[in-house]
Parts: sequence; structure tokens; C-alpha cells
Amino acid sequence: MRPYVIINAAMSADGKLATRERKQTKISGHDDFLRVDRLRADSDAIMVGIGTVLSDDPSLRLKSEEHAGMRKANGKDPHPMRVVIDSTAKMPADGDMFKKGLGRVVIFVSEKAQKEKCDALREKATVISAGRDSVDLEIVLDELSKLGVEKLMVEGGSTLLWSFMSSGLFDEIRIYIGALIIGGKDAPTFADGQGFTDPDDFTRLTLKDIERIDDGVLLTWVKKA
Amino acid sequence: MRPYVIINAAMSADGKLATRERKQTKISGHDDFLRVDRLRADSDAIMVGIGTVLSDDPSLRLKSEEHAGMRKANGKDPHPMRVVIDSTAKMPADGDMFKKGLGRVVIFVSEKAQKEKCDALREKATVISAGRDSVDLEIVLDELSKLGVEKLMVEGGSTLLWSFMSSGLFDEIRIYIGALIIGGKDAPTFADGQGFTDPDDFTRLTLKDIERIDDGVLLTWVKKA
Ligand SMILES: NC(=O)c1ccc[n+]([C@@H]2O[C@H](COP(=O)([O-])OP(=O)(O)OC[C@H]3O[C@@H](n4cnc5c(N)ncnc54)[C@H](OP(=O)(O)O)[C@@H]3O)[C@@H](O)[C@H]2O)c1
Ligand SMILES: NC(=O)c1ccc[n+]([C@@H]2O[C@H](COP(=O)([O-])OP(=O)(O)OC[C@H]3O[C@@H](n4cnc5c(N)ncnc54)[C@H](OP(=O)(O)O)[C@@H]3O)[C@@H](O)[C@H]2O)c1
Repeated sequence: MRPYVIINAAMSADGKLATRERKQTKISGHDDFLRVDRLRADSDAIMVGIGTVLSDDPSLRLKSEEHAGMRKANGKDPHPMRVVIDSTAKMPADGDMFKKGLGRVVIFVSEKAQKEKCDALREKATVISAGRDSVDLEIVLDELSKLGVEKLMVEGGSTLLWSFMSSGLFDEIRIYIGALIIGGKDAPTFADGQGFTDPDDFTRLTLKDIERIDDGVLLTWVKKA
Repeated sequence: MRPYVIINAAMSADGKLATRERKQTKISGHDDFLRVDRLRADSDAIMVGIGTVLSDDPSLRLKSEEHAGMRKANGKDPHPMRVVIDSTAKMPADGDMFKKGLGRVVIFVSEKAQKEKCDALREKATVISAGRDSVDLEIVLDELSKLGVEKLMVEGGSTLLWSFMSSGLFDEIRIYIGALIIGGKDAPTFADGQGFTDPDDFTRLTLKDIERIDDGVLLTWVKKA
């Protein structure tokens, strides 16, 4: 039994997660911000790729006290687990995830990661080896399940989302589309990586829901049956 | 008075116009196909960039006889003008636009285009020089206006759409979002080109309409007032 996987990220109307400088970019507004925080609070774990950590230094913490309180009232840790996919243990030990964030941090590395780097990170986080050259997401989901994660939210970035979506390892995809054009052939998109070439391989979806939020729209897709 | 400009293209849920091989990719279905043909019929001219001609060899003709008939009944040419943006006159003389398509063809080149190439194309099309190194879209809209074009539909591809959207030379953007993931950091997106880096420069939009069509959804954006 792998966790229920919800992919959630915001893109511009032209499909970009950020500018070509890969800096965090404000795409949505206040109401969507609250929605995302609620979804975080409703998840057992929140995941990002190391690319996102290095470019955005996110804390992945719950912004709303109320949401943390609700979790506590339900007998959960007030803060969901935070998970980073990081083959070579590049995770900076002084990042906001350790400084500002609350809640357990789990870092998945591959066999390529140097032992010393992993040991250093172990002082602040749980480090799990999963996969040879890059991190194997099937093993990751398995391990998270063993750690009690039933609902996983994957927030990005482009390369990690591609891996989840191309391998069918997801249940829902929630895409907030903001009212702006960022452009750029080198800007990160909702799914980077190698990409499909054969239409028979495309990941096929079913549109489950459409909701206007702030100036944009939230599309919820599920895997096509 | 420049023409009313409608940008219309189809992208995957992750913002791609085609696969990284840049081959024409089926993103929408039958109903959207009809919608696009109706929009073509309703336009005075249909435009693509030379990149799209070289990769897809489109005829840009109306597929429905009925739509051609409606135009005729309204006293118009049965087929809208077809326009290509092509700085160096690379347009192939044996393409489907000349073989299968109907309706006048107008090719905008820049001063960089060789005279012999332009002269060869002049046997089949109207060739207009507009701009020094690349084609200047403000001049293009001006010239089209002089040719009687009041409503222009711009169909792609990624680079041309970026130019129109980044310079604010549009009135509406219609994005059909298909129920599939294509992925690929090198796949063409709804807006390639250089891209913005400063949020103050982003092209800001207003969401005018949302319509479910086939398995996907059509978003209509207008320029933010
Ligand atoms: N708009 C939004 O909602 C949103 C959300 C999140 C991020 N972002 C943006 O996304 C951009 C970062 O995206 P990114 O693509 O550079 O980085 P990313 O997806 O966060 O991380 C990708 C990295 O993870 C590691 N990795 C290990 N195993 C992997 C596997 N199986 N599949 C995929 N990745 C694996 C790889 O690095 P190693 O080989 O070193 O391990 C890979 O380069 C930033 O610009 C950020 O601002 C936007
Ligand atoms: N899904 C859809 O609805 C849809 C629709 C259309 C196309 N597409 C896809 O889009 C891809 C092609 O896109 P593309 O970006 O390669 O080509 P493109 O946008 O069709 O053409 C771009 C080219 O036009 C020329 N150009 C001249 N002046 C320009 C200006 N001011 N601004 C922009 N371009 C100018 C440039 O070439 P020169 O310098 O040689 O003049 C430029 O490289 C293909 O994969 C095609 O399948 C998809």
C-alpha cells in the first residue's frame, strides 16, 4: 500500500513554475495560499526535490497556526513530515527547513551520496538510501508508507513532478493556473525531465474539477482509468 | 488601427505545444477541432511562425466546407488569408500551404532575406519586408490592417506566441488544455523565447471564460486592464 499522492503546484498561464532564473515566483494570491496551507495540513508528508531546496530554500512549514492546531486536535503531529529527494545529499544544513520549519525532515538519497555528507545530515534529519544513481520513487513511497504516511503532497519542482507523473505514481494533480505569462524556453515548466515522444506513452488524465480562485483557476486532474 | 488579435493554441496539462521532437501532437478532440475551424472561418487571416511551417507543414485551410460556405454567403473570400512570419524566407515552395491550402498566402520577411528567395516565393505568395533582423510584429499588424485584416488569429508556435504576448500585441488568448502530460524540458511550451525575469514585466491577464470541451478545458484570457 503506497501513500495517496497529490501533486500540487502553481504555474503561469503558459505552463511555467518560475522564471528562467528559477527564482521562486508569486503565481497565485491569498486564497490559493490558504488552500495550499490547508492541503499541507491535511497531508502526512510534504515533498520537494533538491532543485527546489537549492533555488527557493523553502521551510515547507504550515503558515497558519489554526491549521497546526487542527492537526493537533486530531491527534497528529502539529506539523507534517517534510521530505526531500536528494541523490547526492546536497541538502544544506543551514537551510530554512531546519531553521524556520517545524516537523520531522526525511531526506532520501541514493547510493551515490557520500557517507560523510549523509552522516552530517543525520544530526538534523532522517536520511534514507533508496536507489542507485538517482532516488527510486517506488522505494520512497514504500518507505514513507512504513513511516506511517498515508497522504503525500508533492509540491515540485519540475523535474520531480515529471518523475512522478511519467511513472504514474500519483492519484491527483492539482494545477493552479495564474493570470500571467512568464515565458522562456529555459524556464521550469510543470513537467520537465526528458519528456515523452510517443503519444502511446503520454500520461492520460481525467479532468475532475475546475475552481476559480483569486485571479486564476485550479484544475484537478486524476489518472485516466 | 491594428487588427483584433486572438492567440489560439492547444497545450498539454503541463504547458507543452508538442513533444520535444517538435512534431505535431494531437492534444484536443473532435469538438475542439470544430471550434478551431469556426474560429479560423471567423478570422480574416490566420498566422503561424516559420518554425511551425518547418515542423508541421500545415495547410491552415478550413476543414469544413460549411464554414467556407458561410464566409462566401457573407461576401468574404471562402478562405481566410494565411500569413507566415519568416525573416529569412525559408518558406518551402512545395509545402502543404501551397499544395492543399486555399486562400491568399502572405509571407513577412526581414531585410536579411535573400532577394532570390523572396522572388521565388513571390510566384506563389505576397512577400512583404518588415523589420531588419527579425520580423517586426508592429509593422506586420500595420500592413495586415492595410490589406483589410480586421481580425487575426495567431496559431503558434511557441516563439511567435511569446513575441506577441510579451509585447502586449494581442486582445485575447485562448488556451485549450488537453487531458495529458507530455513533459520535457526541451519541449515547446505555450510561450518560449527569452522569457521574463522581473515580475514587473510579466504580461498580466484576466480570466474571461472557462469552457469544458472534449476531455479538456478552454481558458479564454484577455489583457489585464
Ligand atoms: N510554482 C510552484 O508551485 C513551484 C513549486 C516547487 C518548485 N518550483 C520551482 O521549480 C524549480 C525547481 O525545479 P527543478 O526541476 O530544478 O528541481 P526539483 O524537481 O525540485 O529537483 C530535481 C532534482 O531532484 C533530484 N532527484 C533525485 N532523484 C530524482 C528522481 N527520481 N526524479 C526527479 N528528481 C530526482 C535530482 O537531483 P540530484 O541528482 O542532485 O539528486 C533532480 O535534479 C524552481 O525554479 C522552483 O522555484 C515551483
Ligand atoms: N499545439 C498547438 O496548438 C500548436 C500550434 C502551432 C505550433 N505548434 C508547435 O510549435 C512548435 C513550433 O514552434 P517554434 O517556436 O519552433 O516556431 P514558431 O513560433 O512557429 O516560429 C518561430 C520563428 O519565427 C521567426 N520569427 C521571425 N520574426 C519573429 C518574431 N518577431 N517573433 C517570433 N518569431 C519570429 C523566427 O525564425 P526566423 O529567424 O528564421 O525567421 C522564429 O524562430 C512545433 O512543435 C509545432 O508543432 C503547436
